[in-house]
Amino acid sequence: MGARIVIDTLGGDNGPKACVAGAVEGLKENPDVKLYLTGRKKQINKLLSEYEYDKKRLEVVDCSEEITCHDAPVEAVKKKTDSSLVVGLNLVKEGKADAFISAGSSGAVLAGGQFIVGRAKGVKRAPLAPLIPTSEGNSLLIDCGANVDAKPEVLVQFAKIGSIYMENICGVKNPRVAIVNIGTEEEKGNALVKATYPLLKACDSINFIGSIESREIPFGKADVVLTEAFVGNVILKLYEGLSKMILKEVKGAMTASVKNKIGALMIKKSLKKTVNSFNTGEVGGAPLLGLKGLVVKVHGNSKKDEIRSAIRQCKNFTELKVSEKIIAGLAEEGTVTE
Amino acid sequence: MGARIVIDTLGGDNGPKACVAGAVEGLKENPDVKLYLTGRKKQINKLLSEYEYDKKRLEVVDCSEEITCHDAPVEAVKKKTDSSLVVGLNLVKEGKADAFISAGSSGAVLAGGQFIVGRAKGVKRAPLAPLIPTSEGNSLLIDCGANVDAKPEVLVQFAKIGSIYMENICGVKNPRVAIVNIGTEEEKGNALVKATYPLLKACDSINFIGSIESREIPFGKADVVLTEAFVGNVILKLYEGLSKMILKEVKGAMTASVKNKIGALMIKKSLKKTVNSFNTGEVGGAPLLGLKGLVVKVHGNSKKDEIRSAIRQCKNFTELKVSEKIIAGLAEEGTVTE
Repeated sequence: MGARIVIDTLGGDNGPKACVAGAVEGLKENPDVKLYLTGRKKQINKLLSEYEYDKKRLEVVDCSEEITCHDAPVEAVKKKTDSSLVVGLNLVKEGKADAFISAGSSGAVLAGGQFIVGRAKGVKRAPLAPLIPTSEGNSLLIDCGANVDAKPEVLVQFAKIGSIYMENICGVKNPRVAIVNIGTEEEKGNALVKATYPLLKACDSINFIGSIESREIPFGKADVVLTEAFVGNVILKLYEGLSKMILKEVKGAMTASVKNKIGALMIKKSLKKTVNSFNTGEVGGAPLLGLKGLVVKVHGNSKKDEIRSAIRQCKNFTELKVSEKIIAGLAEEGTVTE
Repeated sequence: MGARIVIDTLGGDNGPKACVAGAVEGLKENPDVKLYLTGRKKQINKLLSEYEYDKKRLEVVDCSEEITCHDAPVEAVKKKTDSSLVVGLNLVKEGKADAFISAGSSGAVLAGGQFIVGRAKGVKRAPLAPLIPTSEGNSLLIDCGANVDAKPEVLVQFAKIGSIYMENICGVKNPRVAIVNIGTEEEKGNALVKATYPLLKACDSINFIGSIESREIPFGKADVVLTEAFVGNVILKLYEGLSKMILKEVKGAMTASVKNKIGALMIKKSLKKTVNSFNTGEVGGAPLLGLKGLVVKVHGNSKKDEIRSAIRQCKNFTELKVSEKIIAGLAEEGTVTE
């Protein structure tokens, strides 16, 4: 049996339509996966009726509630027990599914992942670790999640978890781990970085290359970019906002006159490729790692391509037994403390 | 008498040549400023001999030492007492000059500014506050300096100092202050942000508009972007690295084929304007605020334009009595604790 993956069809900007379209493509692309679609059964079935697909491998799970981004995350996860998000996460908890994908409220996905699915053996905290585009491919930014003000030992675990993910899911051999810092010298940094640095240096199971200044991140100087969640969140969102702004300005400059417009038409195709390299559609969603199953947060405005990519990501994660490898990796050096 | 400004001619990537050229232009542009050039007298005089300028308003101060970026900053400032950097800062300390400009080691400028020039009355810490480009003009990013792990009260002072700077130097009436956060709700954030938020809200002398997520920074959603120095440094350097990388990719896409090259030629001028908006040459350097004089760190690779802009910045700062306004602003609400 292949991977069993839940798709939460509610909460995203593009509603069940994008999820259903992505699910159908995911089924075709991966002939061994089984999908669960949680949400409003009637609505989902109506959308599904427009497609041809392998009905044995897709099950719709009816839910009466929806968690929106206006709900307080923790409370919503506790109270809306028949929401597409909670029902979906429970399928993972009960072992009926291996992974869960949602375009809904980030806060609710993070909270629900931790509270409902729960952390795997030996994992202190569950980091959110999206891939970010660089001039050399992608780097893993770990952690951008809810673990603000984390302790040094937690960051060391994140370095190990991130390395295992990059090696297995992205095929990067011996991934270079660097900690985000405000200088490259060992004595630089805030209290957290100064306390974490020697622990990383002493850690044999990762390829620690030292500090990375944020100006080097876009040039792919590290495969695993390690940082505390507050800073990680700032990096992730600045990446998003700044690339959007610059590409908008470039586009504006290109259409400022008729001459420019003709010039722009001539380079349109190549430029589109560049713009697309900042599009996360092809790299799947942000995985919440270290849980008893994979939880993937895709962007709120995800379309079918993002859903399809996230399905592939979940399938690979499950088939390559990355969860098991993370648990084994953390246990190896006696970091199991719980 | 106009503003008296020191230019440290050593330590920058482009050496005394860029500083001398910028100084001569600055003299012409500002008929009332007096400039001091610290460095190797013989070398400076040789460079000056190629220009016509008002000799009464330019004085060369000979120094036998140079602080490089390979020196440990604090130690260098203490030991290299005849360096162009230390001699220049002492001119400000002794009241012979109002402001100091250097393209040299950031660490040495920050350390020297605090140790030699010293903090103004009532100032707890001296923040480094560069302007960053946005789609709506410029925002002030405060603090990017050496005050990592700062306390909430210190951040509140930075908000006030930044507001006074933006109002006086950039002409922004009632500047909007926002604190960098990982969500916009009041309860979001790390321990520092949660502790600082209510203090900012209660502060009558600033126009506090709440939290800002980093994705909104490039769109100019706040005039004063307040953050702790570690995060500020990460934002500043990611701004630099990411814009460099994206514009390089765009350029690469444009020259990928002959057809593209022709297209690129047609939009070259407009695009150059866009690229230049990310060039800090026109906005002066990063001021280290709250000292008994202005200390400005210009980029290591500054050319004559950056030096010229920094001279104008120092002149405005001095003539508009911004230091005095900062001291008065902090004293107003009883924040003078020292």
